[in-house]
Amino acid sequence: MTARPTRILAALEAMTPFLGGKALERRRGRPYRARLGANECLFGPSPAALGVLGASSREIGYYTDPTHFELRDRIARAWGIETAEVGVAEGIDGLLGLFVRGFVEPGDSVVTSLGAYPVLDYHVRGYGGHLVYQPYSTTGHNDLDALLSAVRTHRAKILFLANPDNPTGELIAASDLKALVGQLPEDCLLLLDEAYVEFAKDEEALEVGFRPPNLVRLRTFSKAYGMAGARIGYVIADSGIVQALDRIRLHFGVSKLSQEMALAAFDDTAFLADVIAQTTQGREHYQAIARTADIGSLPSWANFVAFDFGRPEWSQSMADWFEARDIFVRRPAPAPLNRFIRVTVGPRAAREYFAEVLLEGVARLRAGSLAEGS
Amino acid sequence: MTARPTRILAALEAMTPFLGGKALERRRGRPYRARLGANECLFGPSPAALGVLGASSREIGYYTDPTHFELRDRIARAWGIETAEVGVAEGIDGLLGLFVRGFVEPGDSVVTSLGAYPVLDYHVRGYGGHLVYQPYSTTGHNDLDALLSAVRTHRAKILFLANPDNPTGELIAASDLKALVGQLPEDCLLLLDEAYVEFAKDEEALEVGFRPPNLVRLRTFSKAYGMAGARIGYVIADSGIVQALDRIRLHFGVSKLSQEMALAAFDDTAFLADVIAQTTQGREHYQAIARTADIGSLPSWANFVAFDFGRPEWSQSMADWFEARDIFVRRPAPAPLNRFIRVTVGPRAAREYFAEVLLEGVARLRAGSLAEGS
Repeated sequence: MTARPTRILAALEAMTPFLGGKALERRRGRPYRARLGANECLFGPSPAALGVLGASSREIGYYTDPTHFELRDRIARAWGIETAEVGVAEGIDGLLGLFVRGFVEPGDSVVTSLGAYPVLDYHVRGYGGHLVYQPYSTTGHNDLDALLSAVRTHRAKILFLANPDNPTGELIAASDLKALVGQLPEDCLLLLDEAYVEFAKDEEALEVGFRPPNLVRLRTFSKAYGMAGARIGYVIADSGIVQALDRIRLHFGVSKLSQEMALAAFDDTAFLADVIAQTTQGREHYQAIARTADIGSLPSWANFVAFDFGRPEWSQSMADWFEARDIFVRRPAPAPLNRFIRVTVGPRAAREYFAEVLLEGVARLRAGSLAEGS
Repeated sequence: MTARPTRILAALEAMTPFLGGKALERRRGRPYRARLGANECLFGPSPAALGVLGASSREIGYYTDPTHFELRDRIARAWGIETAEVGVAEGIDGLLGLFVRGFVEPGDSVVTSLGAYPVLDYHVRGYGGHLVYQPYSTTGHNDLDALLSAVRTHRAKILFLANPDNPTGELIAASDLKALVGQLPEDCLLLLDEAYVEFAKDEEALEVGFRPPNLVRLRTFSKAYGMAGARIGYVIADSGIVQALDRIRLHFGVSKLSQEMALAAFDDTAFLADVIAQTTQGREHYQAIARTADIGSLPSWANFVAFDFGRPEWSQSMADWFEARDIFVRRPAPAPLNRFIRVTVGPRAAREYFAEVLLEGVARLRAGSLAEGS
């Protein structure tokens, strides 16, 4: 290369935010038996979404509607808000990139919890910003007071929180979130990653009607709607913010098929309810498995459960054990989360295989023979 | 909005690079009878690409491979280059955004011809760069000497050229391109938009084997492969450039279905050959129609033909006439291209309807009665 990259790009280290299961399978040379590591929906997608493929695919030769009008309109009507308050992009990953690009000058700060979604870090670095990490409390909670204090100290432009949280599964109480927004400097955006919000009960989650101008909700068709491969998500925010993003977003970024599948999936409320019911049941199964194994687990409002192995070296041994038994799970790297392993709720057969491997692993761990068995 | 956008975003005016046919149809309130305005492939997509949908769609719940390994590997083998020299993103639109972001500092210049692809302008403004336009020659050619001179004067980081050109359809001679690269400052990238290159004969086009470090080729599945709605394109460039983009690109931007359809389409060489043959035949038909109407037309190496109405006011009247007759075509705005109308090669029925409307319009134009008839 003889061309000169920008100063920001020239200083960037290579970084892979995360690898999907397929890339990991290629690397390890064999498929997983249970893919429980990426919080994908293992009960989907909606037959209605698949049903549009036949009709849509014949029109794949045409450009799609770059304004995503129909989908935005449908979402807005469902939430009782304006179409102008809804934006669509290539998943929450794409939306995060737009927010960082649009609101973070080089050198500006973004605050989040240490162990939060790595794609945020990728984008913040990618635009020359500075990510300030606040450790989780030792009990695995987002430390809202400390986060607010970090926002003030660093004059952060964005505070990022996942709710329900990832990787803990915790739902931050609506009253706590409202208090947080009330104390946040008004020029700081609260980006609320609501990727898993469909799995929480409506009456427990922060209502869509609560819409202060600096609150941004990021949602996706990747989780409860079972379409992670389609790369489509949406934002609910002040119309001025949606308009601002419209000046920098990739107008033809989302596939036509993804857009039309999302519309069908959004309308298939019966399927969504079924996925939520199966996921709730699966979470309860995981909690029962943890009790049987006599290990801890965090209560979860998402489609995964964080199992608590008590010590980082134990969770590491268990992660290796799961990998050796062809189970794809995630172990967060930073303390204090590194004693947990996050396991996606799968169908019953996958959960039972997981339970079998977990119980054997924990028994070996307690007998001090896990390393030789893996 | 109480948040403060970046200085660049705060200064950005709203701009819609271009609207697709569907958005235009919503605006005009009725469908087009002939969609000949967006250079979409009206002969596709490949049945092989559609064929993967059944198998792939069941896996839409899984994240895709963010490295696009299989597709990059297949493309690289086809061209006899390294996988590391191929990158995949959300169409040429997405690739243009990455190049501007990665190589253009705020205030830096990019040079292109006046009338070139508007998405380039959108991205250059969006990253705070400055687009320097060089008018086409009066005969509708890219003025390579003047472009090179503008690159030097403005110390441009990028020179953008479409080849075959859009909207003229001209193929710049390989020898002229080689001479241009030879004279280009080595820190200036030549972005060659080869969206239409499949429609040009291999022996006439710049060979893939010609690979100086500052030459970048942008290719797409939107045109000859008939998948504009799938939003997927690729870049062939120095591996250092592809690696640099890998540090800023959206890793999960392209849909899983699009990736797998692209792989199948790339392998369906028989279908591609058929599309090219039909397009070549359609171009000849358009040239014959122009002769019948006794108007000019530019020779084309792409899937469209630029009809020359001699005067801007005449092409404007004709554009209005086509619109009133439900034919979607494009008329470039800047002089000297504004006497042309660009018409996509469609199937025979669409071409015959176009011919009928064209001939009637030209007759009325010559009789001085076009306005009242439209």
